Amino acid sequence: MQDANSFVGVFDSGLGGISVLKSLVSELPHEQFSFFGDSLNSPYGDREPDDIVALSRAIVERQLDAGAKAVVIACNTATAAAAATLRNEYPNVPIIGVEPALKPAVQAFPQGRILVMATAATLALEKYQRLEEHWSGQAEVIPVACVGLVDLIERGDVESHEIRELIERHVGTYRDTVDAVVLGCTHYPFVRKVIRDVVGDVPFFDGGAGTARQLRTVLTARGLLAPQEAMGGVRFSSSKPGEEELTLYRRFYDINLET
Amino acid sequence: MQDANSFVGVFDSGLGGISVLKSLVSELPHEQFSFFGDSLNSPYGDREPDDIVALSRAIVERQLDAGAKAVVIACNTATAAAAATLRNEYPNVPIIGVEPALKPAVQAFPQGRILVMATAATLALEKYQRLEEHWSGQAEVIPVACVGLVDLIERGDVESHEIRELIERHVGTYRDTVDAVVLGCTHYPFVRKVIRDVVGDVPFFDGGAGTARQLRTVLTARGLLAPQEAMGGVRFSSSKPGEEELTLYRRFYDINLET
Repeated sequence: MQDANSFVGVFDSGLGGISVLKSLVSELPHEQFSFFGDSLNSPYGDREPDDIVALSRAIVERQLDAGAKAVVIACNTATAAAAATLRNEYPNVPIIGVEPALKPAVQAFPQGRILVMATAATLALEKYQRLEEHWSGQAEVIPVACVGLVDLIERGDVESHEIRELIERHVGTYRDTVDAVVLGCTHYPFVRKVIRDVVGDVPFFDGGAGTARQLRTVLTARGLLAPQEAMGGVRFSSSKPGEEELTLYRRFYDINLET
Repeated sequence: MQDANSFVGVFDSGLGGISVLKSLVSELPHEQFSFFGDSLNSPYGDREPDDIVALSRAIVERQLDAGAKAVVIACNTATAAAAATLRNEYPNVPIIGVEPALKPAVQAFPQGRILVMATAATLALEKYQRLEEHWSGQAEVIPVACVGLVDLIERGDVESHEIRELIERHVGTYRDTVDAVVLGCTHYPFVRKVIRDVVGDVPFFDGGAGTARQLRTVLTARGLLAPQEAMGGVRFSSSKPGEEELTLYRRFYDINLET
């Protein structure tokens, strides 16, 4: 039986979901969050859908066994590939996903040019295709698969020359020609500064804040919101063994994403 | 040229959008909102799509001429029928719509039974059909066209025997058999108490809070958010002449929807 005093499970194919976790903690400071990074199997963005479903299922199962009252899939690729399946397999637990924030970007810049940066897997999945189809009549949507970017971020360096070169190669051609950028992968907010340098000083949209508010709505509806007097908190675990990985997670958690 | 000190236009086919307006004011207390109720042409829910587009266009045009920096379509039917067209016709102004909150309802109750109450026009439009198609694999979605309900609410009485009977007739059969109710028409939050009496004490989802947060995101992205020191405010106007109608709007604005 789920309980308001239980924790919320959060996972990603690696440490990208920590950008979402920061939004969750900011929106719901009384909740306990247990973050699991599947860094051993990262990146999901190059994998086949079935494979992503299997990896996600194993994580959700473990988080539910441990007593999670809700699960946040803090990964765009895993959400697009696995969220619907997992909701059908675990009907008693709220499963919240994250998706490219195309809607607010198009609403802010109707008929504008919107650059969507995401993994190859996310862009190839039907869920994203439908989202793009829905909004592409109202703006020029430019999807770019940023192959290799998650890999570099997983190494822990978010400002290296290599990262700058890769971003330049993927989206350099759009410098000063787009109205807004949608970060369609939870890893990318950690390199937002570099992307801004390359693309130009335009508004950025990511799914973190929206996901956090969805979680609040869902927990409230189910009477699962932690009591106001509860001490919130965050704990980290990873499929990659060793203290080093967890230190990396904590370092990413401390990065200020507001600037 | 749009200006942060300008106002936000808000409109509905009548006074239902005042439920959204309350969410907007609560989320963005420094903004000036100009609400227009098209009570003369209410309800939109029984009209043809082309007709709804023409009525909505005329209102948006007037609000933009008056200097609105953004427009909120506080009507599910007008959003589904006209939002995409209007965004293409007025590419320089953010146009925010409202839609049935199916997503949070399904995320909260995967595999649950979700009752969606809306106008006949909203349920018939492609936009809603696609939304339902997307979520119906993950829950049992039960759409009910509540014909006549907007008409009764427009008369200003939200607790009459007639309203109770109409709601009973439309959704009485679902008493204590659904997990959640989606209010897919902005008029319906004003009769939530009666719906709860009829359907049972389950969570209700409406689009007001989500729309308010979208507006905040969009104004922020475009640098159009009112300054913190600005005095926010609300003014009302209506296509129905006479002070009586505006008095009705103000009375509805004062109804507490939280309980």
